[in-house]
Amino acid sequence: MSTRYLLLAEGFSGDPHYGKTMRGVLRYRRDDVAAILDSTRAGEIEEGVAVVGSVEDALPLEPTTALVGVATQGGRFPPEWIDLLRSCVEHGLDVENGLHVFLADDPELRALAEERGVELRDLRRPPAGISTATGENLSVDATIVLTVGSDCAIGKMTVSLELDLEARRRGLRSVFVPTGQTGIAIAGWGIAVDAVVSDFVAGAAERLVVEGRDRGGELLWVEGQGSLLHPVYSGVTLGLYHGSVPHLLVLCHEAGRTEIEGAGGGPHPIPPLGELVELHERLSLPVRPAKVAAVALNTRWLDEDAARAAVAAAEEETGLPADDPVRFGAARLVDAVVAAAS
Amino acid sequence: MSTRYLLLAEGFSGDPHYGKTMRGVLRYRRDDVAAILDSTRAGEIEEGVAVVGSVEDALPLEPTTALVGVATQGGRFPPEWIDLLRSCVEHGLDVENGLHVFLADDPELRALAEERGVELRDLRRPPAGISTATGENLSVDATIVLTVGSDCAIGKMTVSLELDLEARRRGLRSVFVPTGQTGIAIAGWGIAVDAVVSDFVAGAAERLVVEGRDRGGELLWVEGQGSLLHPVYSGVTLGLYHGSVPHLLVLCHEAGRTEIEGAGGGPHPIPPLGELVELHERLSLPVRPAKVAAVALNTRWLDEDAARAAVAAAEEETGLPADDPVRFGAARLVDAVVAAAS
Repeated sequence: MSTRYLLLAEGFSGDPHYGKTMRGVLRYRRDDVAAILDSTRAGEIEEGVAVVGSVEDALPLEPTTALVGVATQGGRFPPEWIDLLRSCVEHGLDVENGLHVFLADDPELRALAEERGVELRDLRRPPAGISTATGENLSVDATIVLTVGSDCAIGKMTVSLELDLEARRRGLRSVFVPTGQTGIAIAGWGIAVDAVVSDFVAGAAERLVVEGRDRGGELLWVEGQGSLLHPVYSGVTLGLYHGSVPHLLVLCHEAGRTEIEGAGGGPHPIPPLGELVELHERLSLPVRPAKVAAVALNTRWLDEDAARAAVAAAEEETGLPADDPVRFGAARLVDAVVAAAS
Repeated sequence: MSTRYLLLAEGFSGDPHYGKTMRGVLRYRRDDVAAILDSTRAGEIEEGVAVVGSVEDALPLEPTTALVGVATQGGRFPPEWIDLLRSCVEHGLDVENGLHVFLADDPELRALAEERGVELRDLRRPPAGISTATGENLSVDATIVLTVGSDCAIGKMTVSLELDLEARRRGLRSVFVPTGQTGIAIAGWGIAVDAVVSDFVAGAAERLVVEGRDRGGELLWVEGQGSLLHPVYSGVTLGLYHGSVPHLLVLCHEAGRTEIEGAGGGPHPIPPLGELVELHERLSLPVRPAKVAAVALNTRWLDEDAARAAVAAAEEETGLPADDPVRFGAARLVDAVVAAAS
């Protein structure tokens, strides 16, 4: 039986930031979604999918798998969720979880899952044998493109997915390389690099580009994480950058955002785009100099005229091709990457 | 009974790189060292301490605690070590271990330790409750000084320790903040930031500067890790940098080293010192701009004239005070930091 998701987004389904995993799966695996669970919005419709108030109410829609659809800071579980997860297991659903706290480490939930014959899949659990990077990444015979950005949660994963889709439409041997829980839920493979021991971040990234090539990719779109000047997550960002040894970068930014959001102790201003381009290029390894090929702009808060103006301004500021691949299509950005790669 | 170490350095005691933990403890806790175990050099004397060939041979010197003195890449255990560790436990020694593999996770060794009533202390095991950085680091009322460097294993910890010693000699309320297994073995507290989940590196660093202040430090010397352009460990470096929110940096470099050592896929050239100064300053958070206050040069491979020339050249190149604090004393570097802090 193929997977049909019940997206668990209790209290978060309307929040564009914290419902990140839910939104990613809704956008890229829509056909596999049976329902969204959020008792605060039961009876509503979200992007064409029914919102239900309880696991029982979802059962007529025949879900097979509950997916934890929120990504809270630090990836901890809100305590009230435990009851909800027990309810899923009791009703025979497998559970996929992308938080840092692993469901399979909860003895009661694990016992219950064994009793009911369902699986608890922790998407962020690192695979066995992850260690330090070896240099094998530099031998991967593919063009590697990493999305980087001015902040978290501005669309780096979405940009990688859209550019991969467009490249495949063109017949290129293109593979999306998932590095976070949502990407893993969408693509069905990958490693959450933010959950490995920090000494091994580059090693995990190395393993991912090797696997992307083994999956037939000659053009690898590596999902970026965090931001180089993010006070909380920059370590993940740089380890992923150096471990995935990209040839090219796509710089992602949300039009109008001037500060990093959700980090304490701020304000944490975002530098101008031109500075970000230069900073990222300077931080590439001497053995694998990387160039920013294009700017991907997230214009979701702007009307169409303002969006086009923001794209033009980004081009003017950086001298690079820019576009919003979700709003205006990915062609222009893929053109830019293909041109820069050749 | 106070701790008396048997330093386990089988096959590594003569290697200046991989015997890093051993050398650190020998230098800074020398009075607490009973013997070094290395059967390939039994009967020799290393820095005034007897090298023995077996645990039995060490017993007359009355060690209380065996310390794993090697730090292999990736922190794994050479398999032949398990027998040695069993022998330590069988002879009633506690064991301290700084590798990524935890001794207490080995059921057989743990059972044996319980039977013998000895402790297995894994120095790299993260404390409970580590999570993402909150911004509390920015409220720490102390001058925070982080050592950064052009490579691993060039003396960042040693520089932090020497500058802390000199500052305390001057009567300053100075605290060394340990971020790695050797620093923890020396100082008796700290967190190995390279062993926490990568999302939490900055959070661990934040907790360390908060604790350093709670320990009475008005001047905190944070032990640096890795290097910003290190292909394997840069993620740890940047997470520690942003999480410890230093006001000042001391840039550490080994005179004459032109390439990062021990990383695959190279050569990985080290940029000129002047570029490193600028790169580090640019990567500080806008909310806490950091300046490089001085350059600490490791001149161990040079004769004295060449060492003085190398120090002068570093000053010329960077326009900053430079010195080798191990060879020539830490006064000049502490002067530079104190001047930059005021």
